[in-house]
Amino acid sequence: MASTLDLKEVASNQRSWDTLLPDFPKGPLCKYRSKASFNWKEMAVLLYGEDIIQLKNKIFSALESDPLFAHHPGEDFCREKYQELTFLRCKRLFEYNFVTQQEILENPLKILNMVICIGMYDWSPSLQYFLHCGVFAGAILSAQNRFADLLKQVYNMEIFGCFALTELSHGTNTRGIRTTATFDRRTQEFIINTPDFEAAKFWVGNMGKHATHAVVYAQLYTPDGQCQGLHSFIVQLRDTKTLLPMPGVMVGDIGKKIGQNGLDNGFAMFHNVRIPKENIVNVAGDVTTEGKYSTSIKDVKERFSATLGSLSTGRILITAMSVTNLKLALSIAIRFSAARRQFGPTDEEEIPVLEYQTQADMGREIHALSAASKPLSSWTAQHAAQECREACGGHGYLAMNRLGEIRNDNDPNCTYEGDNNVLLQQTSNYLMSWMNCIRDKAPIESPFGTINFLQDYHHILGCKFTAISAEDCMDSSVPLAAYKWLVCYLLQESDLKLSKEKQSGRSSFEAKNNCQVYYCQSLAIVFIEQAVLQRFHDYTHDPNIPSTLQPVLKKLSALYGLWSLSKHLAVLYQGGYASGERAGKFIQNAILELCFKLKDDAVALVDVIAPPDFILNSPIGKASGELYKNMWAEVLQGNKALNRPSWWAEFCVNKPVIGRLRSRI
Amino acid sequence: MASTLDLKEVASNQRSWDTLLPDFPKGPLCKYRSKASFNWKEMAVLLYGEDIIQLKNKIFSALESDPLFAHHPGEDFCREKYQELTFLRCKRLFEYNFVTQQEILENPLKILNMVICIGMYDWSPSLQYFLHCGVFAGAILSAQNRFADLLKQVYNMEIFGCFALTELSHGTNTRGIRTTATFDRRTQEFIINTPDFEAAKFWVGNMGKHATHAVVYAQLYTPDGQCQGLHSFIVQLRDTKTLLPMPGVMVGDIGKKIGQNGLDNGFAMFHNVRIPKENIVNVAGDVTTEGKYSTSIKDVKERFSATLGSLSTGRILITAMSVTNLKLALSIAIRFSAARRQFGPTDEEEIPVLEYQTQADMGREIHALSAASKPLSSWTAQHAAQECREACGGHGYLAMNRLGEIRNDNDPNCTYEGDNNVLLQQTSNYLMSWMNCIRDKAPIESPFGTINFLQDYHHILGCKFTAISAEDCMDSSVPLAAYKWLVCYLLQESDLKLSKEKQSGRSSFEAKNNCQVYYCQSLAIVFIEQAVLQRFHDYTHDPNIPSTLQPVLKKLSALYGLWSLSKHLAVLYQGGYASGERAGKFIQNAILELCFKLKDDAVALVDVIAPPDFILNSPIGKASGELYKNMWAEVLQGNKALNRPSWWAEFCVNKPVIGRLRSRI
Repeated sequence: MASTLDLKEVASNQRSWDTLLPDFPKGPLCKYRSKASFNWKEMAVLLYGEDIIQLKNKIFSALESDPLFAHHPGEDFCREKYQELTFLRCKRLFEYNFVTQQEILENPLKILNMVICIGMYDWSPSLQYFLHCGVFAGAILSAQNRFADLLKQVYNMEIFGCFALTELSHGTNTRGIRTTATFDRRTQEFIINTPDFEAAKFWVGNMGKHATHAVVYAQLYTPDGQCQGLHSFIVQLRDTKTLLPMPGVMVGDIGKKIGQNGLDNGFAMFHNVRIPKENIVNVAGDVTTEGKYSTSIKDVKERFSATLGSLSTGRILITAMSVTNLKLALSIAIRFSAARRQFGPTDEEEIPVLEYQTQADMGREIHALSAASKPLSSWTAQHAAQECREACGGHGYLAMNRLGEIRNDNDPNCTYEGDNNVLLQQTSNYLMSWMNCIRDKAPIESPFGTINFLQDYHHILGCKFTAISAEDCMDSSVPLAAYKWLVCYLLQESDLKLSKEKQSGRSSFEAKNNCQVYYCQSLAIVFIEQAVLQRFHDYTHDPNIPSTLQPVLKKLSALYGLWSLSKHLAVLYQGGYASGERAGKFIQNAILELCFKLKDDAVALVDVIAPPDFILNSPIGKASGELYKNMWAEVLQGNKALNRPSWWAEFCVNKPVIGRLRSRI
Repeated sequence: MASTLDLKEVASNQRSWDTLLPDFPKGPLCKYRSKASFNWKEMAVLLYGEDIIQLKNKIFSALESDPLFAHHPGEDFCREKYQELTFLRCKRLFEYNFVTQQEILENPLKILNMVICIGMYDWSPSLQYFLHCGVFAGAILSAQNRFADLLKQVYNMEIFGCFALTELSHGTNTRGIRTTATFDRRTQEFIINTPDFEAAKFWVGNMGKHATHAVVYAQLYTPDGQCQGLHSFIVQLRDTKTLLPMPGVMVGDIGKKIGQNGLDNGFAMFHNVRIPKENIVNVAGDVTTEGKYSTSIKDVKERFSATLGSLSTGRILITAMSVTNLKLALSIAIRFSAARRQFGPTDEEEIPVLEYQTQADMGREIHALSAASKPLSSWTAQHAAQECREACGGHGYLAMNRLGEIRNDNDPNCTYEGDNNVLLQQTSNYLMSWMNCIRDKAPIESPFGTINFLQDYHHILGCKFTAISAEDCMDSSVPLAAYKWLVCYLLQESDLKLSKEKQSGRSSFEAKNNCQVYYCQSLAIVFIEQAVLQRFHDYTHDPNIPSTLQPVLKKLSALYGLWSLSKHLAVLYQGGYASGERAGKFIQNAILELCFKLKDDAVALVDVIAPPDFILNSPIGKASGELYKNMWAEVLQGNKALNRPSWWAEFCVNKPVIGRLRSRI
């Protein structure tokens, strides 16, 4: 029996939750909400914390009250208008200054949450802002204090920046960059050149219409004719007073994309563009006034890594973006489908964003994790957005309901900052590098401990699937154990396959190439799913989790584990971890049972992760659940929805002469 | 040694192929073409036949020479403009009259090929034309000669038609339609009514802007107050002289979609709209002048089927549309990726379009096949379009390269004419209905023979995977045998599961529902994959296939079979068909080996299925392979690609006051 004190505490908690998170409007979803096994507000406070919820509330309500951010139902902006609106909204973010530099230093998660909150509204202004204040500024920050003045101009929007690495014919393969920066001793300048259009900078966000300055990656040539490798330089692209191109710069917009069309991706070619010597971003190396190259990093490979070091941050952001898209799509689809059909509400742990560290071992582990979490999260979100679209049937296909926008805007997450397949190779390389320690029985320990379990490699390989019923499988410890075995087994198989390929005389490149499908790629995916599940498991089994929330969280973690694992069931059988008909059936039955049990919690779970209606901006995803009313209202708002077409005479008067043109064919 | 006669024949064949199919421009793809193991022209003639190739050539070159069909690179049409252009293009198709009524009767494949050819250019005008001339006219044709005059008006475009079944709150569940048609004996009219906005006709193609007439599905009420069930009626929506709505009709456009935005999907509500008695489409039943209901089909269920009988045609068309989208996406991605990366070029047999027949057994089998081929093909195309987009990296994400349009336009194929998941239930119901024959050892034979192998049900269930090497697996007979086992095994398991569910006291509806995931749904998919593979296998092993083409076709059929099968590997293990590590490895190694062997044929295979450059309309997919030149040219065509943005002063002059709005939040 609860004491008076407990009751008081509960009441006070409830009051504080209600202040932070107001109730949803009454409607058809009420009955599903009342069935939930937990309080969605308590869950939201647990997951995000009061600070972040307050920040989100501030941002969401500022956007909702600002006419510049008003939605225009039924209006069909052309791309140019959308780009203009995006820029005005981005500029407005400087005026709101939602998170100050001081606040970022105190809690770096705040800036990430801001980018996500704006992104939930629309990724275009969010990315435009972040590419300028985060990526462009970040690339300069990583250099010395040389650019302090420039940084001030960044934060005041006196200049507008972009990050120019990719070229038309070289995306992922950054070593193949062909833009040159030649040092001219006479004038103490670098001369930037684009050898031909295939080496034009291409796809650069903010470059299409707005950027006045770019961090340009180029091959550095010293006066002795030596190529010193890839370095980055600050190059002015446009006049800050007129936005017209600087002499020698041809700069423009690359055209319409599948999504993210508010953002201006651009191209640029440089013809003998001269920049002062000081404009080299000297992280990796520098040039003396005499034109001699100097560097503190002797190893060419390490120097290359230092030049591109900031790319891990990008991948971590993309992971967060993908998780956000997953949340948006699920919010819409689950609210829509609540009454209509049963389908497994799967959610994924929001992978805590790790800060970038320069220490090498940490750097390597972060790289291995971010290089695999980006593919896992972007693919999961992409597939889920498609599933959500289909789950909402025809109405999911209406643009107003936003599932297409979410899918189309999420799509590039699979590609930029490193193609998913290429990145997975880097994770498997990292894992394979531990095989020597395994063979030598050397201790296995990494800074974040994500590979420490490989210490028990031989023991794990001997394990078997031991559950004797579906009930037995309903805790995430069961899929987690299977995952540990999967990582070890695929590590062993990939290692064997690689040796075999090398023994048969193939080059190292070719041998590695032949080991990707079914081996190294699967290894990397299984590893990251295991790492995510381990965190999810630890979190949900933590005794500090309120007992009111633990049951639903444990079910989610078990479902996520089993659902992920079920995609690898063939390997479990093939490698002998599982055998017999029952093993697979237990897993399948446990998944079905968990879906059934979580069905009544699905709406409340989505209440935890959904942004306010204004931000979610989807008639079928509104919190009230009055989907037909909401859709109907929006349809009637449509641009000329009820009007006769302006070309009506083309039907009524100018009739076709049937077969008139047949003689032409 | 070839005789002189043979050589002459080869030369003459080559000449006739060259006339039908001109060579591609020289370029980077030449070296891949020269590596091909076969002549792509010979393959194209084998697959399509000279007749169809000539028709395609005619259509493609007519479109290319007609300014109305010119592409507008870089132009950003608003949706309204796009709808207008679509209508003008649709109207032009009447003037071309590519396939006459007489030609359709002689070879019905011609009209399908015409719809596909126009669709390869753009699905919007193609569907607009087909919805009018095919679906609307087809629904009237199925009635008696009552509508001969109306049909003439259809083919002359004096009226414009649409097919109005779906309502806002009822899509797939057609029994739930709530529009009413009440017979008024006094005036000998039907009165059409929409009870409330949730029963508004919704999603109807051509209804948004153009349709003057609709086939409207409604519940028929006789004067005695009896509801006689779903019937269809011809209702005039708009005046043919002005395109303004008829009295009592509220009709409009439902707004922007994820794709297919040239097509005008619409909604309509009817308020006491009176239509003459003759306007009932009396396939299922009719009303006498006294208001008595009369029908030749006594069984309510059968009557319902007759009313909706034409839906199978729709599904078969969607299968063909999906296969077409698959071809487009592959053409672009394989040409782009030829040099870049190895990935499995998978193709799928173009499923011959079966003609609709009324005979009941044939009807049932066609329904079972079309209800599963539509999900298989639409999902395959959807996933392939996404894979192709990713395989082309960032450039695949540029709108000009068209992979986004293909994916977005293909997307609704998964939903309309029956949601994929719902349709699969119907196929599994059909398969389950044979269990009684199996139990009773009754003969098992269907009109098209696709389930005849169930005769050996018990024998097949006892079979095992017997290949002893990867080489052993490299013929489609191996995956085909495995598929026969899969169908029998999943049939047995689904049957067992259903009995169990029923025994535990669940209602028939609930029991069936609980048998979908892992059972009936998998059964339906496995069955249709098996049927497709059987056809592919038979075709490629036919002794009449030229020996020059047979090797590559056999490899393709083996690869398709193994690749499809690999998704069911877990079930093969679980059910004991396969055991041990080697079985899975043989399959995986055979897939990798086949991909390797087909790599050099990939470009030539795509040459067989790709439409001309003008139709494919993708710089990175052009036949020349000069992808960067082609892309660069298109980028510079972009609307104001090099212009300063018109809102430049918003950056240069009106600077934000940093934090000005912070006080507001």
